[in-house]
Amino acid sequence: MKNILGRELPEYIEGYGKVTPYGTHISETYKIKETVKNKNNGDKVLPSIREALIKCGIKDGMTISFHHHLRNGDYVLNQVLEEIKKLGIQNIKVAASSIFPIHAPMVDLIEKGVVTKIITNYISGPVARAVSEGKLREPIVMMTHGGRPRAIESGDLKIDMAFIGAPACDDFGNINGVDGRAACGSLGYTISDAMYAEKVVAVTDNLVPYPACPIEISQIYVDYVVKIDEIGDPSGIVSGTTKITKNPIGLKIAKETVKVIKYSGLLKDGMSFQTGAGGTSLAVAKELKDLMIKEKVTGSFASGGTTSYIVDMLNEGLFKYILDVQCFDSAAVKSYKENKNHMGMSASMYGNPNTKGSVVDKLDIMILGATEIDLDYNVNVTTGSDGVLMGGSGGHSDTAYGAKLSIVVTNLIKGRLPIIKDRVTTVTTPGSSIDILVTERGISVNPKRQDLIEKLKSNIKLVKIEDLKEIAENLTGKPKEIKNHDKIIGVAEYRDGSVIDVIRRTDF
Amino acid sequence: MKNILGRELPEYIEGYGKVTPYGTHISETYKIKETVKNKNNGDKVLPSIREALIKCGIKDGMTISFHHHLRNGDYVLNQVLEEIKKLGIQNIKVAASSIFPIHAPMVDLIEKGVVTKIITNYISGPVARAVSEGKLREPIVMMTHGGRPRAIESGDLKIDMAFIGAPACDDFGNINGVDGRAACGSLGYTISDAMYAEKVVAVTDNLVPYPACPIEISQIYVDYVVKIDEIGDPSGIVSGTTKITKNPIGLKIAKETVKVIKYSGLLKDGMSFQTGAGGTSLAVAKELKDLMIKEKVTGSFASGGTTSYIVDMLNEGLFKYILDVQCFDSAAVKSYKENKNHMGMSASMYGNPNTKGSVVDKLDIMILGATEIDLDYNVNVTTGSDGVLMGGSGGHSDTAYGAKLSIVVTNLIKGRLPIIKDRVTTVTTPGSSIDILVTERGISVNPKRQDLIEKLKSNIKLVKIEDLKEIAENLTGKPKEIKNHDKIIGVAEYRDGSVIDVIRRTDF
Repeated sequence: MKNILGRELPEYIEGYGKVTPYGTHISETYKIKETVKNKNNGDKVLPSIREALIKCGIKDGMTISFHHHLRNGDYVLNQVLEEIKKLGIQNIKVAASSIFPIHAPMVDLIEKGVVTKIITNYISGPVARAVSEGKLREPIVMMTHGGRPRAIESGDLKIDMAFIGAPACDDFGNINGVDGRAACGSLGYTISDAMYAEKVVAVTDNLVPYPACPIEISQIYVDYVVKIDEIGDPSGIVSGTTKITKNPIGLKIAKETVKVIKYSGLLKDGMSFQTGAGGTSLAVAKELKDLMIKEKVTGSFASGGTTSYIVDMLNEGLFKYILDVQCFDSAAVKSYKENKNHMGMSASMYGNPNTKGSVVDKLDIMILGATEIDLDYNVNVTTGSDGVLMGGSGGHSDTAYGAKLSIVVTNLIKGRLPIIKDRVTTVTTPGSSIDILVTERGISVNPKRQDLIEKLKSNIKLVKIEDLKEIAENLTGKPKEIKNHDKIIGVAEYRDGSVIDVIRRTDF
Repeated sequence: MKNILGRELPEYIEGYGKVTPYGTHISETYKIKETVKNKNNGDKVLPSIREALIKCGIKDGMTISFHHHLRNGDYVLNQVLEEIKKLGIQNIKVAASSIFPIHAPMVDLIEKGVVTKIITNYISGPVARAVSEGKLREPIVMMTHGGRPRAIESGDLKIDMAFIGAPACDDFGNINGVDGRAACGSLGYTISDAMYAEKVVAVTDNLVPYPACPIEISQIYVDYVVKIDEIGDPSGIVSGTTKITKNPIGLKIAKETVKVIKYSGLLKDGMSFQTGAGGTSLAVAKELKDLMIKEKVTGSFASGGTTSYIVDMLNEGLFKYILDVQCFDSAAVKSYKENKNHMGMSASMYGNPNTKGSVVDKLDIMILGATEIDLDYNVNVTTGSDGVLMGGSGGHSDTAYGAKLSIVVTNLIKGRLPIIKDRVTTVTTPGSSIDILVTERGISVNPKRQDLIEKLKSNIKLVKIEDLKEIAENLTGKPKEIKNHDKIIGVAEYRDGSVIDVIRRTDF
């Protein structure tokens, strides 16, 4: 069968189950699953991860969850999986909100059958490559940052044990992310895990006196506390990607983008804004800041993952509040700790479609990246053009859906390949959520947004996306189509749990 | 049948159901109920309470919940019930976390059959009297502050609609308690209602621009927002009871109490403390403050409802943190708003026994009041000695259960009646949770705490509770026993949902 984007999907995928195609009518109600838990108001501190696994009743086939606030500095996932291996456990499903290069040791565990399934929102590095090679027994499930809490809360993704890397934790399991050598700030992606996992283990290298204020995860959800030497590498927690591009093409795109914002009618008091942490996206933040100062505009909030550029805008009064699901750098961690106007939010509040409304629903302007975009404005940030996993939605489809103005900013050509395709290798975000594409060689509005075309056309030169594609192909030549295996190695779930695409095995 | 305290209970109570007697074995697991809700990421603002009731599908027999953070200044409950009456609805069950004299108009609604059941943790004033007179069709259910969220979360208390009086609220339903003319501080008692009610309506007199930071109740739980003129009377929100007693008897009791704390071995760095907002309890806080300064002791946290006296202790560094479920005065509201070390907590985190551990489980010293206490140290704060409802547990039994040292402080004689009885009129808190009684004429340790007797006896004169009773009766004469009706008008639930006592009708 095909979903409404024309992506070919089987009705049933072994190791995944029945496929609900994207675009199917979804209910106006939502369910929060029943949970049954064990009380524990006694001693919660255990001497080792191994002990915690045993106490929690680890067994073959369980789903173990992790969060990615420690990013590419995370030591927790590897240590827990190593102990699981040592206990002779097999067939573990890893539900990690993101997976980074530091998690390379998982490849060996995949080959040994210790890990047989991965559910995540973003994956890069050796594990991504191993999955693309077809090494994982069951298909990887790629969710969105809002889709993950939806799945956890509804029971679609049942977590047996959640391990929470805790920068600061007390002996009763209260956790905060702002104190300690591995301080990472907001712990927004852990909230659903803490609330709905059968068992919750806090793993900390910083056991502080009770209570671990400012408490972000409450003791009422935590079964056990384990003290280890190091939960992470601070230099990896604060990723190196969060710098403004110096590339003149990126800077040009950023300037064009704020022109779009200016003439869109959304540049006004009370506006809200989110941007990713890529170099061009951050350049947009910088340009927008200058424009807001010049035009004397004060925004309401900036949301999402937070960088120093957004913190500066808060401190200069350009936004009143930050709603933060994840801190990308130490300036963001410091601000989150000290500034009452820099608030945390759960992933559910950020982007879960099954609530009474998430923050993305209130977002005006969203700046998004793209690995590929097609003539229907469908965006791929999940795989490279060679089909290899190298990312995932994260909050891409959540914010694109919610924002009044979703702007994709990208170089027209990357690695000598045009980014505009007839058909993206993998659909991450449907074109219906994308309003405009800004490249260094032209700006193209999704034809469904005639109102936006009307607003922009007298001040900004707009081109058809087909013409942009031709410009690129004239420079690079038409790229050869990659023929992947037929074997499905991954399922890309839209935020509502429907299947927006499948990912097939790559030959290297 | 009788429960383990010897209180006579029927096996089934009409309008309440099957009785689980207090002391019955309770499971080590707990259930959080499934909920099914409607999404709502559209326009949430409605023009009136009436409109909200209609949109939420109000009908006969529904359970409507309210919180008591606006205390005796609350205008929300009365306005909502008035609209319900005007809609011709009957047989409403009111689940209000507390009921105050300001809710007097409910008496008329009880008489008219609009309100036929009340579930609350504390009740005083005309409604309490009407219930005692037998006017309410079904028995009132008296819960504890921790038992209420347990009942809501497990599904024992199913709430159809929660109305949340919101000092500040945005158009998407984010709520905080710190801004606006009706600022009340922490909204700890509303959290379970917001999370588990079928429908949630925020009622505000202060519609602020989105987002209403610092957000205490998230938009993800709120269906509708109604703007009204006034949600409460600020002078009633900050109750007049929160002043240190000037009575020399109360001051003497306070001095004796801190001597008990000193010699108990609990006066040390890292200690935690809670006291109520009664005059003698506050005097204990004052005396404790002086002692902590003198002995150079720094505590970890003070918890519970917060007054300026506790705020002072935080500001002077005597406690590192306040964990706050409810602010009693404007100094507490201000501190809660401005000081990051003054944190809110939900009622569940405060005292719900069905979690992974609540704050009361970490409490060292708890100062409690008593209307009556019996020779088994059972305490009544629910009814007067005449059997008339005039209070309720609130957090009494939750904190008494959790604290390492539960101290009841009270005048030995009140209103010419001795407070020590053979048998309290109503058991609110079981004697097994009470460690010591401090009166102006003697201090008596619960014999089950031989360890405490050993610690205290060389520095503090201890007497038997039987002797204290005799001292009082020699002064007042032995009071006549009150014979109440047999008709059960109320059920006192212990925090685990078992029935600790029943309340019978009073003849006036």
